[in-house]
Amino acid sequence: MKKLRIGLFGFGVVGHGLYDVLHKTKGIHAEVAKICVKHKDKERTLDAAYFTYDKEDILNDDTLDVVVELIDNADEAYEIVSAALKKGKAVVSANKKMISEHFEELYALQQQANVPFLYEASVCGSIPIIRNLEEYYDNDLLDSLDGICNGTTNYILTKTSEENLTYERALKQAQELGFAESNPTLDVKAYDPKYKLTILLAHTFGIFVKPESVFNFGIQNLSASDSTYAREKGFKIKLLAHTSKHEDKVAAFVIPKFVKSEELFYDVRNEFNAVQLGAAFSDKQFFLGKGAGSYPTASAVLSDISALVYGYHYEYKKVKQNGTLPFSNDTYIEVYLRYEDDQLLRDLNFKHISQRFESDSYKYVIGEVNVQRLIDLKLNDRTDVFIARL
Amino acid sequence: MKKLRIGLFGFGVVGHGLYDVLHKTKGIHAEVAKICVKHKDKERTLDAAYFTYDKEDILNDDTLDVVVELIDNADEAYEIVSAALKKGKAVVSANKKMISEHFEELYALQQQANVPFLYEASVCGSIPIIRNLEEYYDNDLLDSLDGICNGTTNYILTKTSEENLTYERALKQAQELGFAESNPTLDVKAYDPKYKLTILLAHTFGIFVKPESVFNFGIQNLSASDSTYAREKGFKIKLLAHTSKHEDKVAAFVIPKFVKSEELFYDVRNEFNAVQLGAAFSDKQFFLGKGAGSYPTASAVLSDISALVYGYHYEYKKVKQNGTLPFSNDTYIEVYLRYEDDQLLRDLNFKHISQRFESDSYKYVIGEVNVQRLIDLKLNDRTDVFIARL
Repeated sequence: MKKLRIGLFGFGVVGHGLYDVLHKTKGIHAEVAKICVKHKDKERTLDAAYFTYDKEDILNDDTLDVVVELIDNADEAYEIVSAALKKGKAVVSANKKMISEHFEELYALQQQANVPFLYEASVCGSIPIIRNLEEYYDNDLLDSLDGICNGTTNYILTKTSEENLTYERALKQAQELGFAESNPTLDVKAYDPKYKLTILLAHTFGIFVKPESVFNFGIQNLSASDSTYAREKGFKIKLLAHTSKHEDKVAAFVIPKFVKSEELFYDVRNEFNAVQLGAAFSDKQFFLGKGAGSYPTASAVLSDISALVYGYHYEYKKVKQNGTLPFSNDTYIEVYLRYEDDQLLRDLNFKHISQRFESDSYKYVIGEVNVQRLIDLKLNDRTDVFIARL
Repeated sequence: MKKLRIGLFGFGVVGHGLYDVLHKTKGIHAEVAKICVKHKDKERTLDAAYFTYDKEDILNDDTLDVVVELIDNADEAYEIVSAALKKGKAVVSANKKMISEHFEELYALQQQANVPFLYEASVCGSIPIIRNLEEYYDNDLLDSLDGICNGTTNYILTKTSEENLTYERALKQAQELGFAESNPTLDVKAYDPKYKLTILLAHTFGIFVKPESVFNFGIQNLSASDSTYAREKGFKIKLLAHTSKHEDKVAAFVIPKFVKSEELFYDVRNEFNAVQLGAAFSDKQFFLGKGAGSYPTASAVLSDISALVYGYHYEYKKVKQNGTLPFSNDTYIEVYLRYEDDQLLRDLNFKHISQRFESDSYKYVIGEVNVQRLIDLKLNDRTDVFIARL
């Protein structure tokens, strides 16, 4: 069996983790041969001969079979990945933002260049969800997918729920521990799990949906009142990516949800991720694992590399079977809405309001609202509201 | 793509489920062409032309590509499966007892005949654990596997724990609802999960171990005292199949365990199954799904059929890599032992006893005991003891 030679872009925690794992595990025929990094002056733990600062050194090296892309910048990543695919190199990436924003082009490129592009590490870290959706549920009638796909927000929500911390305090703690970035916007405003959801959509229902078409609402406005409401009702608040199919239309969004104690997501704590599939015949299926961190992510990357050794590529069977399933935001969901502005409530034009509450400190309604309306009113950019599905 | 023609053995609930699922799902190129059943006088829901009562009608029919074996009798199943493999037919089976008892022969047969033999439905129903172990963790340094692999006992244990039923009452309820058989021995005495564990052992650590070499202890002696002890300590009792690797020796057994509320198994209720993997790099991974029932099992069988369409077969990479790892019962585990006979306690020769309790109604010790000793003293056949791991 041939030994794969890897050209690695980026040598942060995941890249380091990958290098370590590759050198500790036996039986995987692959080695890191070249590493392209940005900063010349950073001290490196490996011999200088491994490193280059020019991406062409990897892209034009015909002795390298695989490009593993582990850099932060999504635009640079797209350049590298598309160039590598065009040159006939297999590619492994963990860059959800890049994949989500260029998914259809990257799909087309794979078909044209006839080279594999694998990205298990881009969604839910160590949980093998993409491969399972591709390989195991291709014949099953999948109805729905729900996922806790963002470890940062799940860590924060665990702290607000279990230790009664305020959102601000929990975020600060997450930042101190390295679970949240100094600019946490992509995580707390639920862009990161939205990117992941759009990737999952292709492997769940076979459709490509642009991230800007999917509604996301984060936890950045979570108040003590919201937490108290959840606690009193026996709920935990979890940030759930959701997609489901009804009458051959697909809905998808990322919105916090009040989760009951009998639901499996209730006990998914801290930086763990989890995915639940609803399938007509196999009933509910649940996967849980570490969503972030250098080793869990590196382990998913490694698993893709190992699959490349065996000639694996995604078949996108569902894209070929269902690729024309319509995606629609014209769907109603039941939500708790804490609000200040009565005009907003009128504009949201609830189909039905089943509960109204007002006190000196806050007010909320519970009712059914249209997802497209939430997008139109840019709800995620307001600071005076919090919504959660029921 | 070629349409697979299936010869089906057995047409009970799973066979029916498979037929239904195959006819409802699109995009899987396979059809049930012939069904071999035992009882001529049973009324059938399908046209009589489908049925035969002679296994040779399927085994000798060259137009059939795949044999799906779904009968109860393990000896007859082995005859059918081995004959089919020798004739070059691909085989799908859900028969854990048969596979467990003949695993090494069946492995050799696959290699000789060079035909695939798939059996995802034999372990944990709809959870794709074998395929995941084969495909996804081949490169990962797996340390351990724990599983709730038997829906019947998990149902009974859920009732004894949550509704405070006695074991006898819970068993009766499970039998009335069809979750337990009229002779429940294989389930309650933990033979069924042991068969499954031996199958998992080949895909986890690459070794074949005979079921008679693995210690199993069931829930048949569970008393109100044991349940009360668990409740007072905040534990739930779960029947866990376990294997782990220490210093390149593999241990494996099926024994009830006191599970704490922070463990993921704590909330695995009723007929659900779950598997937790411990891996050096991806940390803990958890899979949950329905372990039994016609559709979950049929869905796993279907998934194997679908994989056959794409030419899939188990590679048994770990057997080829680690096939010589020694299996050993010379290992110590910490247990709660409720007992009556002081001589038994002496014979068990605990390495260390950390707690002793005696009352008018029962007595127990907590301490470390050797697994081989539990086998030698035939603990599972005694009626006066209960053990659970801590």
